[in-house]
Amino acid sequence: MKVSTTIAEVRSQVKEWKRQGLSVGLVPTMGYLHEGHQSLIARAARENDRVVVSVFVNPIQFGPSEDLESYPRDFERDCTLCEKTGADLVFHPEASEMYAENFCTYVDMDRLTKGLCGASRPVHFRGVCTVVSKLFHIVTPDRAYFGQKDAQQLAVIKRMVRDLSMDVEIVGCPIIREPDGLAKSSRNTYLSPQERRAAVVLSQALAEGRKALAEGERSAQAITGIIRGVLESEPLAQPEYVELVDWETLEPVETADRPVLAAIAVRIGTTRLIDNFVFEEGPECN
Amino acid sequence: MKVSTTIAEVRSQVKEWKRQGLSVGLVPTMGYLHEGHQSLIARAARENDRVVVSVFVNPIQFGPSEDLESYPRDFERDCTLCEKTGADLVFHPEASEMYAENFCTYVDMDRLTKGLCGASRPVHFRGVCTVVSKLFHIVTPDRAYFGQKDAQQLAVIKRMVRDLSMDVEIVGCPIIREPDGLAKSSRNTYLSPQERRAAVVLSQALAEGRKALAEGERSAQAITGIIRGVLESEPLAQPEYVELVDWETLEPVETADRPVLAAIAVRIGTTRLIDNFVFEEGPECN
Repeated sequence: MKVSTTIAEVRSQVKEWKRQGLSVGLVPTMGYLHEGHQSLIARAARENDRVVVSVFVNPIQFGPSEDLESYPRDFERDCTLCEKTGADLVFHPEASEMYAENFCTYVDMDRLTKGLCGASRPVHFRGVCTVVSKLFHIVTPDRAYFGQKDAQQLAVIKRMVRDLSMDVEIVGCPIIREPDGLAKSSRNTYLSPQERRAAVVLSQALAEGRKALAEGERSAQAITGIIRGVLESEPLAQPEYVELVDWETLEPVETADRPVLAAIAVRIGTTRLIDNFVFEEGPECN
Repeated sequence: MKVSTTIAEVRSQVKEWKRQGLSVGLVPTMGYLHEGHQSLIARAARENDRVVVSVFVNPIQFGPSEDLESYPRDFERDCTLCEKTGADLVFHPEASEMYAENFCTYVDMDRLTKGLCGASRPVHFRGVCTVVSKLFHIVTPDRAYFGQKDAQQLAVIKRMVRDLSMDVEIVGCPIIREPDGLAKSSRNTYLSPQERRAAVVLSQALAEGRKALAEGERSAQAITGIIRGVLESEPLAQPEYVELVDWETLEPVETADRPVLAAIAVRIGTTRLIDNFVFEEGPECN
């Protein structure tokens, strides 16, 4: 497995692979990899001849009061995990390699990004779209893998690819959870032992919401009420949002009469956690 | 020469060419082609194995009070000119092919686009960057050709390509002029015979500015004063801006001590015309 820190080196390696007719999968990450990322890399390795993992804590997707500085990093461990999971190239650039002096071009969206996490993180998805665009231009992957855990991000990237006619297949992958149900996240490391125990309330609350849907409840107000009720039973949990939205447009729905995303963001102490599920009639997609 | 109206068809043709190891040049246009466009197509044909010309009056780069509806169109004549100049494929999509329902993703820039034409055309460069991004994703050209006539557009596209790590060489090509000096433009067709005679004042004014620079004048105020003086001698000419800016950042300069762009926008009657020149010490680039 190769580690590259420059755009030029990645581009040259990928061009060599493409000349050989090999397909390329990309897994964009911010590092501090866990089993969630690992499942993306493993799937990319199954579906492509070569796999590139980017490990880059992207400064422009953090707001001024967010956790850019404290975001956990362990590049050596990341490399070990990438190698054993089947990655061929890890792209690990400095911020100055990605954002040259006087950088001023952004990819942004005037829908899909205003609600849910976008409401409290106004520059977040602009930063995500911009860095993912750059990674697509650098790696020119046939397929790119994103976790369903960041459901809004997945919907936004799919829309960006459609709108900007990018020639890449976006593959959404299921949420990987701890044994007690907590969705895997690099930010789980921020939790104290007591907070870690409390954090299970996110998946528990969503399970109740999903149960109501499965039993035929279709009112968004009823379903979000059920989810909110469970969250409020945990004193350490402060819900930021609890929403039921159209899974394609991310617009709030009143009735779950099409594929819907139930998404929540909750503060446990100072740590902001998110979780979600997608529900559609027939076989469920998550 | 082939004409395609769908993204899928263009993509498939270009992939076939790439499989054969052929290089591809792209000339993005809004049609109603003149000798300026022709010079871009001819250069693209000299420098690439295959040439794609896009003919698309891009609605999102026009403001609500601008000339989208009246913009001149003559697709049959455009095709004749493309074919005889060496194009291999003309991409002529409907607006609905480029902008699907609920289109909401844009490429934009928070510098370079605020001054000059951007001051009176606030959505223009967002529309240009977005459509050019799409065309790059669809055609994946090795080189793309833009006229120096739209100098701000050329600087903006170069910056977009750098910032978003797009793998395409941007080739700027000299302004093509009528015998009396008027820069070729599809919008010249709007001019009455009297206005057409008056319009020569743009190139005359710039020639005086360039002469002052060549003779050693370096004060931006003095140079723009000279240009403005000539423009004001023509009663039909209403200057919108007369500026001397850094040719890379497009920031106004006080002193022409680096490569500079002298750019003007002038209304002749209701028609808005632009012209410019780039000046640098040593061999001039335009």
